[in-house]
Amino acid sequence: MEDMQQACGKVRNATYKLSLYDTKTKNDILLAIADKILASKKEIKAVNAIDIQNARGKLSEAMIDRLTLTDARIELMAEGVRQVAELDDPVGKVVRQWTVESGLEIKKVRAPLGVIGVIYESRPNVTVDVASLCIKSGNGVILKGGKEAINSNRALFEIIQKAIEELGYDKDIVGFVDNVERSATYEMLQQAKYIDVIIPRGSDNLKKFVLTNSQIPVIASSGGNCHVYVEKTADLAMAKDIVYNAKMQRVSVCNAAEQLLVDRDIAEKFLPDMIDTLQKGGCKVIGDETVCKLCKDVIPAKEEDYKTEREDYILTVKVVKDYKEAIDRINANGTKHSEAIISKDAEAMRVFTTAVDAGCVYTNASTRFTDGFEFGFGAEIGISTQKLHARGPLGLEQLTSEKYVVTGHGEVRK
Amino acid sequence: MEDMQQACGKVRNATYKLSLYDTKTKNDILLAIADKILASKKEIKAVNAIDIQNARGKLSEAMIDRLTLTDARIELMAEGVRQVAELDDPVGKVVRQWTVESGLEIKKVRAPLGVIGVIYESRPNVTVDVASLCIKSGNGVILKGGKEAINSNRALFEIIQKAIEELGYDKDIVGFVDNVERSATYEMLQQAKYIDVIIPRGSDNLKKFVLTNSQIPVIASSGGNCHVYVEKTADLAMAKDIVYNAKMQRVSVCNAAEQLLVDRDIAEKFLPDMIDTLQKGGCKVIGDETVCKLCKDVIPAKEEDYKTEREDYILTVKVVKDYKEAIDRINANGTKHSEAIISKDAEAMRVFTTAVDAGCVYTNASTRFTDGFEFGFGAEIGISTQKLHARGPLGLEQLTSEKYVVTGHGEVRK
Repeated sequence: MEDMQQACGKVRNATYKLSLYDTKTKNDILLAIADKILASKKEIKAVNAIDIQNARGKLSEAMIDRLTLTDARIELMAEGVRQVAELDDPVGKVVRQWTVESGLEIKKVRAPLGVIGVIYESRPNVTVDVASLCIKSGNGVILKGGKEAINSNRALFEIIQKAIEELGYDKDIVGFVDNVERSATYEMLQQAKYIDVIIPRGSDNLKKFVLTNSQIPVIASSGGNCHVYVEKTADLAMAKDIVYNAKMQRVSVCNAAEQLLVDRDIAEKFLPDMIDTLQKGGCKVIGDETVCKLCKDVIPAKEEDYKTEREDYILTVKVVKDYKEAIDRINANGTKHSEAIISKDAEAMRVFTTAVDAGCVYTNASTRFTDGFEFGFGAEIGISTQKLHARGPLGLEQLTSEKYVVTGHGEVRK
Repeated sequence: MEDMQQACGKVRNATYKLSLYDTKTKNDILLAIADKILASKKEIKAVNAIDIQNARGKLSEAMIDRLTLTDARIELMAEGVRQVAELDDPVGKVVRQWTVESGLEIKKVRAPLGVIGVIYESRPNVTVDVASLCIKSGNGVILKGGKEAINSNRALFEIIQKAIEELGYDKDIVGFVDNVERSATYEMLQQAKYIDVIIPRGSDNLKKFVLTNSQIPVIASSGGNCHVYVEKTADLAMAKDIVYNAKMQRVSVCNAAEQLLVDRDIAEKFLPDMIDTLQKGGCKVIGDETVCKLCKDVIPAKEEDYKTEREDYILTVKVVKDYKEAIDRINANGTKHSEAIISKDAEAMRVFTTAVDAGCVYTNASTRFTDGFEFGFGAEIGISTQKLHARGPLGLEQLTSEKYVVTGHGEVRK
């Protein structure tokens, strides 16, 4: 516990200095990190080989592939850091500015969150991605990666610190928990004195552990049980393209569609061809009674199917009475991620986008666009399905808080 | 537990309807509530008399006064509701709007948070204040008041529901937990399925209970250990006015100053007169060694005093080396509420307002201005000292979330 407090305390102290670094300084740091990564390809690959060695026989080939750092992947990692340097610095931006009756001039200004703890399980490049986003947004960061990549993560962390130190800045703006046990995660989640926000990235299991045990506010995604709803006035050719894209373009991601809702007035016209095309593309279809009647080879749906995110070539299909039923079903079963209506009816689209409770609501487009790059934010640290602070893609701006800077001239309260 | 789920579920369902009410509808509801409160003075006072009767001998006279509803206070309550009707409706406001390369038009739009659970201990007027702010911002609300005011709170809740129902709208946009036990609070904090955000208002004890037990995101204030820092270039007459106002104008509130920091270069010139004036005004002064040497009747400070919010006629005073030490002390001991620097040095003020980690940072003004009305927001539901979502006064805008409404024309992801 003392080690953890010390590690986190060091980052906290350095973070107050970081809050005063200007944009150029932060960009200089990022470019130095990118350079050092490129200059350290050999060492990175050597250390990465240990992780791969340790994983042999324990992890699937796909998992080992995710773990592997090649020259090309290391170059991409460095390129990612350079791209973050090119993004707008949100810190210090005046969101709103006004003068009140008392004479005070009030500015609402973007300020860093402070110290962000990021707990992740996936590929080693997350170490670099997350550190660069945090530095650019003026936040200290404490990294805790998964055990599979511990050697690669540690090496990348040391490269980052060395790059910062060589430029003459405080290397402790980035910290690293060099302990892969769950107990260390638990300890980290108790450091409310030193860490302002926790962001978990990884499995549902990890997120649940973090949400249950954290004494620190958490920004998390609950995954995406995303719906595409084809309303009765929809252009059916457009609907078919969008449904196919939302489901099939990349099935393993949280913004892929898991659920299709279709108005009953158009079910007979729309569904047989849609389902047939999906099935020919390799997608299994689960459906309610009507869908089973209208289409071939449909697996009868259970209530649970409407609530399940599969991240696979499986789509659950339900026929609904009208947009009101569609909205009710989405609000009951959705995960507040991304929801789409395909329609030509302005009123249906207005009610849908207003009443559907989700971070991103689409009219006549695929849910697959919920992404920092697609939204023009650049790299993202995740997608939020919470309602407080930020929804949707978490770019640099979402890694900041706001503060009121109030300029007086001796004003006192009467 | 089933009762609680049912009560919360009813509000959840009604809230989706509320999200579609336009501004006029919400204002009509508020005006009807104000009218009904005015028309029910007699009944309110009769029920309030029961609470007062029950409190006799158990609560202090000051507490009983806080509990008591007079004609004038009931009129003020109704007036407060009318004022909320006059405030700008934040819902549906487009925060930002842009078009991305794929052709999608993205709008970032203010949307209600959903269902807000408010747990409070204080005066019965909170029932009405909170309900009106939530209705105006499109949020369903579940009210849970303290046991001292249970009869008054229930009567006010019933008046609110009746007013909504008589207008033909869904009365369940406002709910009420008619159980004053802590166990009911605990149950309420488990209803993450039905409640989106919890706002506790009351003692530290209540807030701690809520933060520890809530499965639902919480917006809370940790109180205000606010500092006024007199930097060496300060106009000392201005500094004296501001310190006196920040400490003395109303001691029982969270934006009152608890701590005074003074640069050592001006300590001898500034402190004796300042402390004398405070003492003559009835304020006890606690101070470090230098303060004890320079001034009369100063109680020697212990480390704990620098971290303590007293909400009383007591001020802790410390002499510091420079603004860097002042900032470090504020970041170590402050509660991220309101912090002020009195100075003429632009660089000192820039560094102070940038590096001090607080919701509201002031230059040359009293900390007492951190308040929804003083900021021009109108009525507030509280002051946030958190860093996620919203900092400072929580007005109508802070009771909303944002969502991305994305308009497509058949776009699919490549």
